[in-house]
Amino acid sequence: MGTPGHDSDLLQPLLDGDRRALARSLTLVESRGPGFRNLLRGIAPRLGRAHRVGVTGAPGVGKSSLVAALVATARNNGMSIAVLAVDPTSPFTGGALLGDRVRMTDHVGDEGVFVRSMASRGALGGLSTATGDALDVLDAAGFDLILTETVGAGQVDVEVAHESETTLVLFAPGAGDAIQAMKSGLMEVADLWVVNKADDVRAEKVRADLVGSLSLHEPPDDLEERVVLTSAKDGSGVGDLLEKLCARRAELESSGARGDLARGRIRRRLTAAARDLVSERLLGSAADSLIDAVVTGERSVHDAAEDILRTDDGGRS
Amino acid sequence: MGTPGHDSDLLQPLLDGDRRALARSLTLVESRGPGFRNLLRGIAPRLGRAHRVGVTGAPGVGKSSLVAALVATARNNGMSIAVLAVDPTSPFTGGALLGDRVRMTDHVGDEGVFVRSMASRGALGGLSTATGDALDVLDAAGFDLILTETVGAGQVDVEVAHESETTLVLFAPGAGDAIQAMKSGLMEVADLWVVNKADDVRAEKVRADLVGSLSLHEPPDDLEERVVLTSAKDGSGVGDLLEKLCARRAELESSGARGDLARGRIRRRLTAAARDLVSERLLGSAADSLIDAVVTGERSVHDAAEDILRTDDGGRS
Repeated sequence: MGTPGHDSDLLQPLLDGDRRALARSLTLVESRGPGFRNLLRGIAPRLGRAHRVGVTGAPGVGKSSLVAALVATARNNGMSIAVLAVDPTSPFTGGALLGDRVRMTDHVGDEGVFVRSMASRGALGGLSTATGDALDVLDAAGFDLILTETVGAGQVDVEVAHESETTLVLFAPGAGDAIQAMKSGLMEVADLWVVNKADDVRAEKVRADLVGSLSLHEPPDDLEERVVLTSAKDGSGVGDLLEKLCARRAELESSGARGDLARGRIRRRLTAAARDLVSERLLGSAADSLIDAVVTGERSVHDAAEDILRTDDGGRS
Repeated sequence: MGTPGHDSDLLQPLLDGDRRALARSLTLVESRGPGFRNLLRGIAPRLGRAHRVGVTGAPGVGKSSLVAALVATARNNGMSIAVLAVDPTSPFTGGALLGDRVRMTDHVGDEGVFVRSMASRGALGGLSTATGDALDVLDAAGFDLILTETVGAGQVDVEVAHESETTLVLFAPGAGDAIQAMKSGLMEVADLWVVNKADDVRAEKVRADLVGSLSLHEPPDDLEERVVLTSAKDGSGVGDLLEKLCARRAELESSGARGDLARGRIRRRLTAAARDLVSERLLGSAADSLIDAVVTGERSVHDAAEDILRTDDGGRS
């Protein structure tokens, strides 16, 4: 099936854990460059190893600091970890996101850590397609844990949550609130709620309020368990959070829920990918002739739509 | 191409102007019943005759009364006319719409008038697909003029406007306003603005305000021409409006703009129809096996998406 080309050289090094091949693979997949479908075809049999975790919450809750703390804790526990930072507001890698990454320089030269910013606005084929493909590439590269961090701006976060197996929604004293998160649909997709900045005296009040709001919608028995207090500053609670993440991963696996999540995710991605293909073909010259055929009455709209789906552009990667 | 079936009997009578065949054809197309694609294929060479006019405006502006007045005036001028009333809020033919149609009983037995309510909420394949298909059926039945009346609820009206060659946006003293219409994007799709209830003393003020608002966005030279005062009550201005509609139709034809409008409309419908096909196929059993193949790593998401598009369910109409 594979078309020969210079990017076919990426597959084996990527699977072997080569970090340069990983970076180039992500660029290839994000840009829909020549050979990206071949690469994704090549990694398909190697997926499903990583635990895919989404991290979101309103601006100011300290997402990036908590992610950095989780990275350090995961490394101390011998887990390899990748971070994908999705910024839908920026066409290029945003300054703010990169700035927050400075603390990650602790891990420079550590092959067990990989950080990547993804600018979703420029992503061809839509955000969830781009995120899903990038997560597949990171998964194939062998990471134990992949954190996808989003900016907490609503719809994007919900979409990214759908690409995750576990979603953390963060809160902090003085930033965002449960009502806002409820409105944006984030509460429904959350698996664990994190109150960050536990070193702040108001954190306990935020936690109590959060448990109060949640008890209206969630079964109360495991609610205290699923709300975690952390401090990225002094590191308290971060180990507990990582433990909960590992426990959830094991639970998903043993209950069979992990397979169900994968099926739901793949159905969603399949729909998006099929729609992207349709849009792509509607931009091609074959579509123009089909439109002509409908205008002149040679074809009906529905027959032309079947033709669009049947269009095979063969040579494409 | 055609699959034999009892509904293949509809095509010839429909094209010959049989009103019972027309009613059955509309039901078939709205319900996506067996043979609907055959029927649309059969009428494809017979399209493009009718002038497709959208009529919209906020509740209370008197759309249905004006439509009834236009019907009477068109008949007096020897034009055949069909009315498609689209009500997105009702799963079935709405009582209100039917109530307004009572005055249409003037035309009972007149083969030159045809009125149909379409409940878009229940329409399979989305509103614009259903409306476009119904308009094609009415066009093939040989009407000179087809009025599509919508409830003035925003997005639906804009979608229906996209299915029209000419869009009238109605105003009236005490109902709706230009600001509201601007917000919903209706002003941009309007070709003619109608101030109805001209018998009301406040109508002239509404007209002046409307011209004032419009002059901020529209070329002022033909603005007075494009704002029409009508009274469905005493019939004043309705003849003028019909004349303007006919003049616009002639102008669209001679300038070549009519063909451009058709191409734009067909591109939009083709996109919607292709997406509907994708959604349909994703509900089929072939999609389930493809999802399994992706879960087990036999196929990539993108290859499975190509497979979905390639799926041929042969026997379907």
